[in-house]
Amino acid sequence: MENHLDTHDSIRAVQWHGDHLRLLDQRRLPDEEVWLDCRHPDDVETAIRDLAVRGAPAIGIAAAWAVVLAAREGLALPEVLAHLRAARPTAVNLMWALDRMTRHADAGADAFEREAQAIQDEDLAANHRMGELGAALIAPGSGVLTHCNTGSLATAGFGTALGVIRTGYRQGRIAHVFAGETRPWLQGARLTMWELVRDGIPARLIADSAAAHLLKSGQVQWVVIGADRIAANGDTANKIGSYQLAIAARHHGVKFMVVAPSSTVDMATPNGDAIDIELRSPDELMQYAGSRTVVEGAAAWNPVFDVVPAELIDAIVTEHGVVHAPDAKGMRAMFSGA
Amino acid sequence: MENHLDTHDSIRAVQWHGDHLRLLDQRRLPDEEVWLDCRHPDDVETAIRDLAVRGAPAIGIAAAWAVVLAAREGLALPEVLAHLRAARPTAVNLMWALDRMTRHADAGADAFEREAQAIQDEDLAANHRMGELGAALIAPGSGVLTHCNTGSLATAGFGTALGVIRTGYRQGRIAHVFAGETRPWLQGARLTMWELVRDGIPARLIADSAAAHLLKSGQVQWVVIGADRIAANGDTANKIGSYQLAIAARHHGVKFMVVAPSSTVDMATPNGDAIDIELRSPDELMQYAGSRTVVEGAAAWNPVFDVVPAELIDAIVTEHGVVHAPDAKGMRAMFSGA
Repeated sequence: MENHLDTHDSIRAVQWHGDHLRLLDQRRLPDEEVWLDCRHPDDVETAIRDLAVRGAPAIGIAAAWAVVLAAREGLALPEVLAHLRAARPTAVNLMWALDRMTRHADAGADAFEREAQAIQDEDLAANHRMGELGAALIAPGSGVLTHCNTGSLATAGFGTALGVIRTGYRQGRIAHVFAGETRPWLQGARLTMWELVRDGIPARLIADSAAAHLLKSGQVQWVVIGADRIAANGDTANKIGSYQLAIAARHHGVKFMVVAPSSTVDMATPNGDAIDIELRSPDELMQYAGSRTVVEGAAAWNPVFDVVPAELIDAIVTEHGVVHAPDAKGMRAMFSGA
Repeated sequence: MENHLDTHDSIRAVQWHGDHLRLLDQRRLPDEEVWLDCRHPDDVETAIRDLAVRGAPAIGIAAAWAVVLAAREGLALPEVLAHLRAARPTAVNLMWALDRMTRHADAGADAFEREAQAIQDEDLAANHRMGELGAALIAPGSGVLTHCNTGSLATAGFGTALGVIRTGYRQGRIAHVFAGETRPWLQGARLTMWELVRDGIPARLIADSAAAHLLKSGQVQWVVIGADRIAANGDTANKIGSYQLAIAARHHGVKFMVVAPSSTVDMATPNGDAIDIELRSPDELMQYAGSRTVVEGAAAWNPVFDVVPAELIDAIVTEHGVVHAPDAKGMRAMFSGA
């Protein structure tokens, strides 16, 4: 089983190939594995905007490589950066990675490449560390529910919440997994189930709206999710539906864990009210795989993130440690190593 | 506007044509209006089982006409009844309508036909009465959120929760409507939006998982749903996701209303724990509008109803009246006319 898992841990959806970036087109999974070769930063920006690459850490890594492409092409960096920043407003890893790259703006193309590689390598290491830290919170034989995709596909590899699930399953702490399908983009159905089936981890898909009924049934001890931005007080923006899960978990006495690298924490955002929630096209809700599901003339409201207030979170796990019952003080202490 | 509404109120998805039953195939909406002609009770049973006709009141009415078809064919009633009862286990209207029909088992085919017509006519009248009673609870200018489809398509006409919305909109009490898409069958996206757009009622579709974020935004004052079975204490089984909505509504101080004819109330079921929750095929969750969404080898858990406990319900509306803060005493009082 270790070998089997190790094989699939090694899915790398964001790959630097010396002179171009290869991205696994996540819109096409699970039907087919199609790779996009990006040779210009605009290719990367389009891939981020159109969700060919998604997941907050993976977006940050892809954006870092876009800066390398821009430097190789001799493009004006401020314009490239502004363009990339606007591609997805909620995921703070995107801003964090670009800020980190710009600190090397005068050091030449090689320095850019080393920094992008460091961002990618550090993310992978952080995921393995978070896997250990998060799994340690889970009692043997537990059931978990996750949402969206936070696995190898969403990161440099292994995953955040899904990394905790991988480690927890290997350790016998997690016996079975439920995954919400995650409308409208179905990342849970298409991507998380794909990763879990490949790893041989017992998993069942549920309708997002079945979560409360599931939690009432006693089959789940922890809800484990990733994050797109964590504010200084622990409020967490994540895929739409996360807030609903947190309310239902608290209602049933089920524990709620957020797993994200420190690059997802934005200490400059005081709380969830200050987080910009991306509204995407109503069309995303009114069609699937090219089939329209709603009568012509209909309207839709399509926020793709929501905010879980810190008071509904039992633990925030980063590579620096675990913050229990998070608040501003606990978050500051984690970053200061206290 | 009145005329426009009246036109569309008159959609009748279950129609008796003297010697056969015509059903609007709701699986094909909103793309096309296909009618199924049922000449044998097995045709009706298949239509119920396969969701060509759905909605608790409409299922009951269709089953009543199936008994008429059986009588005309001279079939053995006990077998037909057992077959029909098994088609959908949760909707109690099915059992109620069949019980009511069997009281006429010795009165001949004409008596059957009169009884089926009475069931259908009474349902329509009950819906208009509930529309008035439910709308009266809603303050002018309110926003409402509904789930699944409870409109003309789900009933003899006009609708239960959607009947309250129709009346409330005409009276200026309801300014705008949100509808959850209602996975896995998308009754909200396909059917409720179809009815609302035809009626010209301002409405927006949301992902089911966006409900809590919506309720937090202050745009909704009432969640209004139908029911598939209401127990003697007011616990209400309804489309999967209803429970989650009720928890989120209470969390945000948003009111929660259940609208259903008295035929949906099962005083022989003491509480929600005694309600049989239908589990349907995992395949329903692993495709979307005909496209497979999940990797081969995946599993799913597909309960299609859940139970809203009475303590999360602010009002149950039947044609007999309104039970506020429902409990066993309040439910008994409504039926006794107290």
